[in-house]
Amino acid sequence: MGEVKKGFKRTHHCGKLSLTNAEETVTVMGWVQKRRDHGGVIFIDLRDRSGFVQVVFNPDIDEESFQLADQLRSEYVVAVKGKVEKRPEGNINPDLPTGEIELNGRELIILDKAKTPPFIIDNDIDINEDIKLKYRYLDLRRPKMKDIIALRHQVMKATRDYLDENEFWEVETPILGKSTPEGARTYLVPSRINPGNFYALPQSPQIYKQLLMVSGVEKYFQIARCFRDEDLRANRQPEFTQIDIEMSFINEEDIFEMVDGLMRRLFAIKGIELPARLPVMSYQEAIDNYGSDKPDLRFDMKIKDISDLVIDSQFKVFSGTVANGGQVRGINFKGGASSPRSKIDAYTDFVKIYQAKGLAWIALKEGSLKSPITKFLTDAEIDGIKQRMQAEEGDLLLFVADNPSIVASSLGNLRLEIAKEEGLVDQETYEFVWIVDFPLLEYNEEEDRYDAMHHPFTSPLDEDIALLEMEPEKVRSRAYDLVLNGEELGGGSIRINNRELQEKIFKVLNIGDKEAEEKFGFLLEAFEYGTPPHGGIAFGLDRLIMILGKTESIRDVIAFPKTQKATSLLTNAPSRVSEKQLRELGIKVD
Amino acid sequence: MGEVKKGFKRTHHCGKLSLTNAEETVTVMGWVQKRRDHGGVIFIDLRDRSGFVQVVFNPDIDEESFQLADQLRSEYVVAVKGKVEKRPEGNINPDLPTGEIELNGRELIILDKAKTPPFIIDNDIDINEDIKLKYRYLDLRRPKMKDIIALRHQVMKATRDYLDENEFWEVETPILGKSTPEGARTYLVPSRINPGNFYALPQSPQIYKQLLMVSGVEKYFQIARCFRDEDLRANRQPEFTQIDIEMSFINEEDIFEMVDGLMRRLFAIKGIELPARLPVMSYQEAIDNYGSDKPDLRFDMKIKDISDLVIDSQFKVFSGTVANGGQVRGINFKGGASSPRSKIDAYTDFVKIYQAKGLAWIALKEGSLKSPITKFLTDAEIDGIKQRMQAEEGDLLLFVADNPSIVASSLGNLRLEIAKEEGLVDQETYEFVWIVDFPLLEYNEEEDRYDAMHHPFTSPLDEDIALLEMEPEKVRSRAYDLVLNGEELGGGSIRINNRELQEKIFKVLNIGDKEAEEKFGFLLEAFEYGTPPHGGIAFGLDRLIMILGKTESIRDVIAFPKTQKATSLLTNAPSRVSEKQLRELGIKVD
Repeated sequence: MGEVKKGFKRTHHCGKLSLTNAEETVTVMGWVQKRRDHGGVIFIDLRDRSGFVQVVFNPDIDEESFQLADQLRSEYVVAVKGKVEKRPEGNINPDLPTGEIELNGRELIILDKAKTPPFIIDNDIDINEDIKLKYRYLDLRRPKMKDIIALRHQVMKATRDYLDENEFWEVETPILGKSTPEGARTYLVPSRINPGNFYALPQSPQIYKQLLMVSGVEKYFQIARCFRDEDLRANRQPEFTQIDIEMSFINEEDIFEMVDGLMRRLFAIKGIELPARLPVMSYQEAIDNYGSDKPDLRFDMKIKDISDLVIDSQFKVFSGTVANGGQVRGINFKGGASSPRSKIDAYTDFVKIYQAKGLAWIALKEGSLKSPITKFLTDAEIDGIKQRMQAEEGDLLLFVADNPSIVASSLGNLRLEIAKEEGLVDQETYEFVWIVDFPLLEYNEEEDRYDAMHHPFTSPLDEDIALLEMEPEKVRSRAYDLVLNGEELGGGSIRINNRELQEKIFKVLNIGDKEAEEKFGFLLEAFEYGTPPHGGIAFGLDRLIMILGKTESIRDVIAFPKTQKATSLLTNAPSRVSEKQLRELGIKVD
Repeated sequence: MGEVKKGFKRTHHCGKLSLTNAEETVTVMGWVQKRRDHGGVIFIDLRDRSGFVQVVFNPDIDEESFQLADQLRSEYVVAVKGKVEKRPEGNINPDLPTGEIELNGRELIILDKAKTPPFIIDNDIDINEDIKLKYRYLDLRRPKMKDIIALRHQVMKATRDYLDENEFWEVETPILGKSTPEGARTYLVPSRINPGNFYALPQSPQIYKQLLMVSGVEKYFQIARCFRDEDLRANRQPEFTQIDIEMSFINEEDIFEMVDGLMRRLFAIKGIELPARLPVMSYQEAIDNYGSDKPDLRFDMKIKDISDLVIDSQFKVFSGTVANGGQVRGINFKGGASSPRSKIDAYTDFVKIYQAKGLAWIALKEGSLKSPITKFLTDAEIDGIKQRMQAEEGDLLLFVADNPSIVASSLGNLRLEIAKEEGLVDQETYEFVWIVDFPLLEYNEEEDRYDAMHHPFTSPLDEDIALLEMEPEKVRSRAYDLVLNGEELGGGSIRINNRELQEKIFKVLNIGDKEAEEKFGFLLEAFEYGTPPHGGIAFGLDRLIMILGKTESIRDVIAFPKTQKATSLLTNAPSRVSEKQLRELGIKVD
């Protein structure tokens, strides 16, 4: 290292000093965490990126340094030359990696003074988030924030190493892209040299990565910035980062194998071991058993179907629902039989959020049943239900009778709610699952038409293509999502690479030639010049870091985040601009 | 690899097949480069990312494949299963890495048909650039374009590996940033949820990287996208990529050492060896010897000062210039004495571009001098000049007498012009040089004030601070540029980390408190909370790839570039948007 000031050259990092450096003369630099005066000497906790070290200034050793040390305040930036010494036995601090030594300060210079910061630079502070965001540069000094920045770097690095080893090329795609007719959530950028014309910031590099497959790049990735201009729900940001991947001449198996390896590499950073291959589950199995296409597999409590057992029941709520094409399904809250009535009422209110009309329940108490519905059921029906639900004494069975989508969403969410309340979820468990065989289409009731569940270039399963015209709702797609602990980490699909099939899909989606041309014109044209079979996937990097960094807020994992109103409290962006600037762009504020 | 189509799983890449695969049955996939029918069999050159292989379809081996192969056209995408065979002796193609073998096709499927492309997919094509940009996905299929994409990936990867090994953290900084009052070349982005307010796209992450130093990140880098909205000179793009670096607790030496290592690593990709440390030259030395702060050191032809030799000369053009504070300097075009008069006239016209009033010359021909000026010079003066210029028989000496800046720019450029014309430049030589000790300030004649030569946070040399008030033009800065073969690769500086000094500089620059607050308010505030000594550098990635990839156009090194009018011929961005979109953004086109 070179000299920062005459005679001062950094030789060591604070947090890396140890007994092995004892008796060495070293120069460290960093920020004053705190100063204590004790017994006629001054103690400084000095902080740099690597950690802390205690520095002692003793007037008997160097009077000048001692006098200067007396002026130090929190967050002053200093350089200290001194001798590393073993601490006296009683003064060893086992909580500090450098706690066995201290630095005996011989020379000190103040590199920069500091005003009193608006909050203490400490992991545990309880202050308004707005203050932390305004002084983000101070917030980032807190060791746990610094650790997240380091983690994010490590994850990006490991991602790139892994994909490079697997012969992927990182290709940068444009930020200044093409606006599309709908583009509801797209940021627009007026062009100064093409007045009246606008670029659009990408919501994802989807079109470009498919063009790269047409180009023969074969294995593409990018850690790509993406943009979405919308009211921000919690844990959304106007700009976010995506690990974006596309491959040619492959099928789903290749994507899974490659991503499984990537996840294994990334989670290993935090010492989390994943199995060689991550499990795969069909969409239907996920909906049937967990009521969700993002099943949380950290606990069991599967949803069971009892429709067949109650189809002829006297209990019309059940049998009537089944007769009308609905379902009766339930979950078994193990050991929940002793729940007070108020709790069951709360569950009933809870499922109503998801449109369920009610919640039927059976509590298996000390040899007897408690339930408002068993009086309508025969003993045989009750036995059948108990068996199906694998019910034991102490369990609480909870049922919803309704159409399949309400049953799934109400029971799926109730399952999660109970697990959360009851602490059934092991926070140190990482249960991944690939969800496959999604429906290709979603029926849009409002507009009486089908929408693409993923996007219109998603390939249907070969064996389902025949159903496209007559039973489009039965067509499954070659889309896949990777789900971790009930959250979607990423998703993608094998794309259509065949003109006729693409046109067939557009027809089912009611996308006319003109609309297709306007929205995807240049991509469709590209597809005509020889397109390889291809597919890909994209992951939200921010969410990955949240999981690996064990933090709840997306604002913790982005160095300079924006608020939920998409503003930066640090820079005050966005802001008004001058009339002159607007005039040059050829626009006016309305 | 998984099955792409029933029974077809890629086992090998075309360009990787060799004699070691002889007699193996393999499956390859790719694009048909061309089809030839010869002697009753069909030959296909099949292309994938890795290269080419020749595939033969013989009706005697498989009639069905042969019939299908007959339908193949250029750029069809196919999968072929076949047996690798040694080519008969006379058919070996030494120009092709796979030229010793061919693939005997047994099974063939067409994965996608292709229209006839608008140009042949070949390295050497002579077509309008607009056509290539419109069909960029086809242009990128050409092996040399694909190689540049691969090279760009390799360079980014090596940069990240190197900086990671050196404990740098990559930190993503915002694309949606703060607009500043001037911001003449800044792209603005209207905010939908904050109507009437605008973000600005960054011209560089400068402010954020300095904030990260305030945060204690200590070693930051980013391969960062930057934006500039301006009429595009050749080899500029509205969005470009920068290798951006900042370090704390360091001096210039640390930056140089680190960057020297990075350059060594990057040039090694192309087998170019660089010295362990790159040379350093002061700004003044560069101007004096090469007339430029971007000296091309691949050839000598230094500029020599003869002012002291002609100060009392009868030749008033020389002595008068010196008397008025000007200079007389010249270059020695070795072996140029035989240049025809027309060539010397062309040089004279050339230096006039740079405001020189004329060009004096002396040609040393077979024992005699030819020159329009020697008649005004004494023998002693001529001898002195010859000695100073290290002139030998056959040389042509060229002189300019003027103020220092005109002398430097005219002779500096003439030096380059002659080298180019005479082929003095070895294209395989890479001469790096660090330029240091730049002037801190540039006098702005128009506005009668000083501007910062780099930016207002650049630190002056410690020993020059005393000159700030009385002789500001003499103050040298701690800025540095890395120059390669006469081009600036990157530049940076050690920054000011001290409030009083910063205020002094603002005063010299005539930047008032209000202006400073408006432009840099939050950064100045951040600097008050303990700022470490820090400095950094930024490199243009695109230019680096151009140099390593030996290409002249920036559009060759960006996957999806824009034209000089900042438009994409592929996507037609930028474009008009709907009234509805504008209404939602609260803006109108003027």
